[in-house]
Amino acid sequence: MSEDSKESSLRNLKVVLAYDGSDYSGWQVQPELETIQGSLALAIGRLTGEKVLPQGSGRTDAGVHALAQVATFATRSSIPVGNWQKALNDILPPAIRVLDVQEVETDFHARKSARKKTYRYRIYRAGVCPPFLARYVWHFPYPLDEETMTEAAAVVVGEHDFTSFAAVDEEKRDEEVVAVHAQNGVESGKNVTVDECKRTTAGSTNVRTVYSSAWVREGDEFTYKVSGSGFLHHMVRNLVGTFLLVGKGTLRMQDIGTILEARNRSAAGATAPASGLYLVSVEY
Amino acid sequence: MSEDSKESSLRNLKVVLAYDGSDYSGWQVQPELETIQGSLALAIGRLTGEKVLPQGSGRTDAGVHALAQVATFATRSSIPVGNWQKALNDILPPAIRVLDVQEVETDFHARKSARKKTYRYRIYRAGVCPPFLARYVWHFPYPLDEETMTEAAAVVVGEHDFTSFAAVDEEKRDEEVVAVHAQNGVESGKNVTVDECKRTTAGSTNVRTVYSSAWVREGDEFTYKVSGSGFLHHMVRNLVGTFLLVGKGTLRMQDIGTILEARNRSAAGATAPASGLYLVSVEY
Repeated sequence: MSEDSKESSLRNLKVVLAYDGSDYSGWQVQPELETIQGSLALAIGRLTGEKVLPQGSGRTDAGVHALAQVATFATRSSIPVGNWQKALNDILPPAIRVLDVQEVETDFHARKSARKKTYRYRIYRAGVCPPFLARYVWHFPYPLDEETMTEAAAVVVGEHDFTSFAAVDEEKRDEEVVAVHAQNGVESGKNVTVDECKRTTAGSTNVRTVYSSAWVREGDEFTYKVSGSGFLHHMVRNLVGTFLLVGKGTLRMQDIGTILEARNRSAAGATAPASGLYLVSVEY
Repeated sequence: MSEDSKESSLRNLKVVLAYDGSDYSGWQVQPELETIQGSLALAIGRLTGEKVLPQGSGRTDAGVHALAQVATFATRSSIPVGNWQKALNDILPPAIRVLDVQEVETDFHARKSARKKTYRYRIYRAGVCPPFLARYVWHFPYPLDEETMTEAAAVVVGEHDFTSFAAVDEEKRDEEVVAVHAQNGVESGKNVTVDECKRTTAGSTNVRTVYSSAWVREGDEFTYKVSGSGFLHHMVRNLVGTFLLVGKGTLRMQDIGTILEARNRSAAGATAPASGLYLVSVEY
């Protein structure tokens, strides 16, 4: 009898993942496209025979990277928890690596249980960007007033309505949206239902708390580090695009507060490219 | 009158390039395939209107990287030498970067004038390879006697016939071969002719001098650094594959000398993967 066919009780597994998002169409499963969630679901399926859609702490867009994305899924497989990391890594492509697998309480959910998320955005400042960094930074070699950008970053700390920094093309929000695909072929009660999805979306606002927000110079890189209770779709990349306008002198430091108050996406700067963005950690 | 149409005297330009070879079919131009040499030739063509095939210091295979490859080509363009780097980088993809462009004597040739080349081969030793390194190292997390490998590396220092470490599938040799494509549409007398190509190939042997050869531990990486007068096709990757057999205990340190003397490719280890190899520098 194979391990897979042994019927065990339902367990809730928490997976920590790093990925190079360059060649993927983002986290969320999409028909015909290579996605992180889809790749992970396939790997779990090959391992256990179960059709499971792991739920991430939030979506990451095409080209965005993760140092420690968190996902949860339910399984009846009897594979010991200590064997999952190597088993998944043997199946997954080298661009996606499982860093840790733990069994967690049945009420733990990667997205809903998240308390704090940290992102990093890397800008490469030197004149020529090494080819080995091109997929992993935004190359911006033009003049920037980095000191004023550092001051501007502090303005968004605290609880604010971040509508001005949310993607306009979406009613949906990064943290709140659950893939509609979640209903397809999911066998376990742990995975999200249509009702839960509606309820979560309806109850959401664009108010988020930013705990820390700072630019740091590290060699040829100028890096934005931000932690918060949650982030709207495109929020970090729109913050970076807006701080850049401050760095270029197009906006003044004080304009950041005005933009926040406007609650209007058109008030802020352009969305910075995906290649520089990293989901650094999710805390529970 | 555009800069291009001004007829100037023939100048010989030396270009230093870094590239991420992961998505390229190697240095040498090939029909229908993306190559470094082909990309550089296209960029020069777009800039000057000239059909020029830049000559590299040597070929690098598909997936092999360069920190400072050197290429030369002749041009009648009047574009000032100081403008070439930015102009080429504006056209080339981010995976290929021009680090320097200099005007050199007409008798300077990237391959024939080379006196010393240095390569590096990166092995990643930890259990899980970060996704951001997967394209840039060989992930080998299994036990290796690194101390004995370090001792074995010293055995190849000096002048030897390296036939045992040369690719068997080729009469041609990395340093000596000139692309047959070099004759197509090359306008200038500086670029290699069929006669030169034959002469060079006929006169070559598999004797090379290795100036230094060492393994170094750097964090989770175990790196092979080798400098020499020149390297045969696959020579560094075959040396790495053979040192690995020493590290695994399949070969003894003393077997390296015996393999060299055998002058037979089948005596040595397998060719290590391309992803770990870097052309570090070429000295003249």
